[in-house]
Amino acid sequence: MKRKITDKSIELFEQKGFTQTSIQDIVNELNVTKGTFYYYYSSKEQLLMDIHLEYIDELLAKQARIIEDSSTSNKEKIVGLITQLIEDIASKGPHGRVFFREIRHLANDNIAIVKEKRNQVRFNIENVIQAGIETGEFKGKLQADVVSFAVLSLTNYSYQWFKPGGEMSTKDLINYYTEILFEGIAEE
Amino acid sequence: MKRKITDKSIELFEQKGFTQTSIQDIVNELNVTKGTFYYYYSSKEQLLMDIHLEYIDELLAKQARIIEDSSTSNKEKIVGLITQLIEDIASKGPHGRVFFREIRHLANDNIAIVKEKRNQVRFNIENVIQAGIETGEFKGKLQADVVSFAVLSLTNYSYQWFKPGGEMSTKDLINYYTEILFEGIAEE
Repeated sequence: MKRKITDKSIELFEQKGFTQTSIQDIVNELNVTKGTFYYYYSSKEQLLMDIHLEYIDELLAKQARIIEDSSTSNKEKIVGLITQLIEDIASKGPHGRVFFREIRHLANDNIAIVKEKRNQVRFNIENVIQAGIETGEFKGKLQADVVSFAVLSLTNYSYQWFKPGGEMSTKDLINYYTEILFEGIAEE
Repeated sequence: MKRKITDKSIELFEQKGFTQTSIQDIVNELNVTKGTFYYYYSSKEQLLMDIHLEYIDELLAKQARIIEDSSTSNKEKIVGLITQLIEDIASKGPHGRVFFREIRHLANDNIAIVKEKRNQVRFNIENVIQAGIETGEFKGKLQADVVSFAVLSLTNYSYQWFKPGGEMSTKDLINYYTEILFEGIAEE
């Protein structure tokens, strides 16, 4: 039932926004009582925090698996991180949109917790870029932090326009973006 | 007075969100009556539409000046378009955030109008990329539409993290980003 409440809430938050969705709306859709809701969550805000933590903790766990793989180069790790971020957004559309859009409705100390985890997502990318600069895979003049923002811009903004199942496949998008990022667009 | 209402509303919409801000909140902050508000705007939604149109029409006019300059190469035009988008976001922070965040609160036919203008912003980038592919400035294998999304990702996502007046100047950011986009990050 907890899973059902979370999934339905994500759906409603995405359609109507967090503020516009009441606990009554959620339980109505599931044909349960408010009591059922309060058995699992003390408030709508706690539910929103749960949605945020689930999204980001899963992301961090997947990143860890990519980064800790000792058989891959830093370049391959960056491809892996981009793939995972874009696939995540493509496969978990509504969850991702709620994640990006509704963070400001969390309580201040919860915002701080989520923001720290978000920063960790970025530092993971930055560290791989830095390692790749040191091995000579990436250009020495680069600022690893700026590159990490560029990578996150490409992946995170894709939820604004990319339609999975459309003409362009997720795999195509990942190939185009990694090619642009690694080789650039200018003819030499 | 119209200008004052718009500016104050942008400030409040950014702080509290469009839904959470009432016409009463706006007129209270300006020490005027609701009558004054309704003299200029028929509704809060019409005011939001005005904010959207002002932002995007100014953007399109600036793009037109860059694109129609016959003395610049396509590469220089792309630098110009990136510069203008990032500077716009850096200098008009709250206006930009309201623009990106609150579009779904517009009426459906107004959303369609704004989306068409947003698409025009993207087509303008895509057309310069395509022209540059044809002159050989950009790589022949590129998909101009994907590159235009990459450019918009870099510029539009910057409002999420870039703090103008911080350690990194707007000019630095533009230089880093155009270098990454043109030359890529991989060492040859």
